Amino acid sequence: MIDRRAAFRALHHTGRPLLLPNAWDHASAAALAARGHPAIGTTSLGVASAAGRPDGVAATGAETLALTRRLARLPVLLTVDVEAGFTDDPGAVAGYVAELAGLGAVGINLEDGRANGTLADPECTADKIAAVKAAVPGLFVNARTDTWWLGVADPLPQTLARARAYRAAGADGIFVPGAVDLATLRVLTERIDAPLNALYQPGGPGLDELSRAGVARVSTGSLLFRAALAAAVATADAVRAAGFTAPRGLPSYAEVQGLVSADGD
Amino acid sequence: MIDRRAAFRALHHTGRPLLLPNAWDHASAAALAARGHPAIGTTSLGVASAAGRPDGVAATGAETLALTRRLARLPVLLTVDVEAGFTDDPGAVAGYVAELAGLGAVGINLEDGRANGTLADPECTADKIAAVKAAVPGLFVNARTDTWWLGVADPLPQTLARARAYRAAGADGIFVPGAVDLATLRVLTERIDAPLNALYQPGGPGLDELSRAGVARVSTGSLLFRAALAAAVATADAVRAAGFTAPRGLPSYAEVQGLVSADGD
Repeated sequence: MIDRRAAFRALHHTGRPLLLPNAWDHASAAALAARGHPAIGTTSLGVASAAGRPDGVAATGAETLALTRRLARLPVLLTVDVEAGFTDDPGAVAGYVAELAGLGAVGINLEDGRANGTLADPECTADKIAAVKAAVPGLFVNARTDTWWLGVADPLPQTLARARAYRAAGADGIFVPGAVDLATLRVLTERIDAPLNALYQPGGPGLDELSRAGVARVSTGSLLFRAALAAAVATADAVRAAGFTAPRGLPSYAEVQGLVSADGD
Repeated sequence: MIDRRAAFRALHHTGRPLLLPNAWDHASAAALAARGHPAIGTTSLGVASAAGRPDGVAATGAETLALTRRLARLPVLLTVDVEAGFTDDPGAVAGYVAELAGLGAVGINLEDGRANGTLADPECTADKIAAVKAAVPGLFVNARTDTWWLGVADPLPQTLARARAYRAAGADGIFVPGAVDLATLRVLTERIDAPLNALYQPGGPGLDELSRAGVARVSTGSLLFRAALAAAVATADAVRAAGFTAPRGLPSYAEVQGLVSADGD
């Protein structure tokens, strides 16, 4: 367990950003692991949507726990999106995260965005981070601030202040989704003394540019889940319109079945 | 409930095959419903793989029930793949299917393929069909015979004999996955006195050709699930290789969230 946590931590310091693809079920996680990604995250939008629940409103604590139990058996490092911890009680957040860590998760994402579209007080999020780090010191806590995501005015100073508070509470990394401008990302990486996680945006900077800006980790967020959904609907459309052409890399029935036994059970 | 069952039955007699796309979670089902498909099925491979379990070995009865509970709230007619009923006890199969019907499913697929890759005795499958029809007379029972699927020698006579036995037991439709040759399908539609369901095969006949062969229903099986998985992995590959181009029809975060509230809750 300790070695896997150290391995995950080290992936933030290779000189090249860690590309972290985000899964939402066992099949997507197993397929990404089989494709050679050393670590995967989860996407709370994907987990919520697959279960028919809304994202970001603390409705998927049980699904996230069940998913972690399934994915932790895969031969890949796993970090879990726990939204804002599914509660504002720091002790309860720490207990929940300790359970995920006990199952084998090596990291979590913990966010300060709230269900009502506003930011939590930084002290509230810092208290959760401190409680989690006290309970599971070796776990990589990626603190996400939703300053850009939620469109707050003049986000840079507030982002830096929150990053300082979360670092002081013990956060191992800082995640700022929505910050895509390279000049902004450069300022963030220079002024935050922890690995910076950027959210990959279609049409935005690629891995090389993000690397040069000092970004240590790049997540795909809900992108893979949305691409999967688009492909399913487009395939049904194409069959209906008699215009179907099999995509490259379409896995066979047997290959999909193989994703289950590939997890070492 | 009765009207929805009648509506589903009528979709097998429009003079044009019913294209039945197969979903595996709430998101895929809601997206397909939103795309205008009047009815959807489930794919047991997708349901099993999403949950990290093998397909076709009666390991996903609980998942299938939970999924039916979620999907039955969507504004779309739902037919559920129950593999071979998850047991060989006809009464237990009927009880399970009655629960699905009570949740709102208008049909089921019940197959005679067994976990060990052989065909069940036709009497065993016929007994399950009869028990289900006795318990839920209005439910559309699509009896699937895996003669082609499992590669039995000289499959046509055995398929016709099984179709007769399943019809005599009360089956409403006959599903013969793996039969893709149009001449074979024509023989099947001429000699089976019930709507014939064909499995769509990439590279095989399109809807128009299947329609001319008399096919009443065309399922996509696990195709959409496999296309979704391929798209997720390909998207992660493309981000890693700096070659990502957003696919057409990529849904936004808000559009995916909208799939939850669109189900009438």
